[in-house]
Amino acid sequence: MQSKTKRAVVLLSGGLDSGTVLTIAKSRGYECHALTFRYGQRHSVELEAAGRVASFHNVTRHRFVDIDIAQLGGSALTDMKIDVPLDRIDIAGGAVPITYVPVRNLVFLSFAAAWAEVLGTGDIFIGVNSTDYSGYPDCRPEFIDSFEKTANLAAAAAVEGRLKFSIHTPIINMTKAQIIAEGVRLGFDYSLTHSCYNPSPEGWACGRCDSCKLRLKGFAEAGLKDPVKYAGQ
Amino acid sequence: MQSKTKRAVVLLSGGLDSGTVLTIAKSRGYECHALTFRYGQRHSVELEAAGRVASFHNVTRHRFVDIDIAQLGGSALTDMKIDVPLDRIDIAGGAVPITYVPVRNLVFLSFAAAWAEVLGTGDIFIGVNSTDYSGYPDCRPEFIDSFEKTANLAAAAAVEGRLKFSIHTPIINMTKAQIIAEGVRLGFDYSLTHSCYNPSPEGWACGRCDSCKLRLKGFAEAGLKDPVKYAGQ
Repeated sequence: MQSKTKRAVVLLSGGLDSGTVLTIAKSRGYECHALTFRYGQRHSVELEAAGRVASFHNVTRHRFVDIDIAQLGGSALTDMKIDVPLDRIDIAGGAVPITYVPVRNLVFLSFAAAWAEVLGTGDIFIGVNSTDYSGYPDCRPEFIDSFEKTANLAAAAAVEGRLKFSIHTPIINMTKAQIIAEGVRLGFDYSLTHSCYNPSPEGWACGRCDSCKLRLKGFAEAGLKDPVKYAGQ
Repeated sequence: MQSKTKRAVVLLSGGLDSGTVLTIAKSRGYECHALTFRYGQRHSVELEAAGRVASFHNVTRHRFVDIDIAQLGGSALTDMKIDVPLDRIDIAGGAVPITYVPVRNLVFLSFAAAWAEVLGTGDIFIGVNSTDYSGYPDCRPEFIDSFEKTANLAAAAAVEGRLKFSIHTPIINMTKAQIIAEGVRLGFDYSLTHSCYNPSPEGWACGRCDSCKLRLKGFAEAGLKDPVKYAGQ
């Protein structure tokens, strides 16, 4: 433990992974500044979940930033004209999924770096994890490492030696089951989170999209019941 | 000349540098997609200039993207509570100026990469130049090179070999006088551009901020008269 509290910017989507990462950052003693993007998600239920998780952890500040990625098009997560795939069997198989948002983590981390520089810290937490490796290139460690180098060349405070960017990826090598077990161990409440790409009008999870399937598999492997409500339950 | 037109995303602020870069990209035969950010600039006159320049060059598309950097604070260019410095003598001297916006080019280039990926191209043009070196770390070639590597690791289309990011910085080693001479040679009209950090209510340049001083020095060294209107002229 240190005497002076360290600040961190924590990317918070409202999902299971980023909620766990905020839990881990808090457990490591950071003063947490949560950053949530409104980027044309199809469903505001995700943003509401981010608000619940930030409140649960009593973050120092929770900032919602509007970014206009949706108008660029190209992803089923932001474009209402593209259907979210349901009932896929091979959810971890090879190709980049249609739910890919172009270089999303590059855009998100760039904003996080801007805010971190203003806060006078280089510590940024992001919930990328290995389950996403095969499909999303901006979840891989080689991307994270390269971004960290780039940010340290971009920021005046880094170039002048007042801070050094460190992109923390505490769950990058965990399975979903391990992530959930770690969050539960640290006292996190997963009923606050939302993962579904395709929720019902009531905000219930569909249980059929890739994100629901990964989540349900994770809870099953952790020997736990997912506390969120599923449609048709 | 090539038979198939190549697309490029061109960052366009409305200033002298980015207007010249768009001129150069057009002269190289690119189908240009101009990208302008509304990030809480103090003065909309800059955005109007971007519109004029894009129209002059008849770009394929001109996109204005809203980003919320201003709410992060920390720069005289977006924070009305911080005064823009006037009448500085040593405009190219050492320290990062108060007009620095945290990791701005990192954020801008990340968005440009997202749009480029959707457009199916890796060519991005940005008007960083050596006059800005001393003050703005995200104008240096080592930052640009590192960003290019990072983007190629972030984008699905790059990882799958469908495109390769190339960040073009055609004016990075030019003086202001050389930039102006090149733009004039290619037929660009600098009366459309706006550079001043501190314009009058009419939108006239102040002639006293760092940006005006660099611009006026450039025109003087190029043996030309700046066609924009200065307050008190």
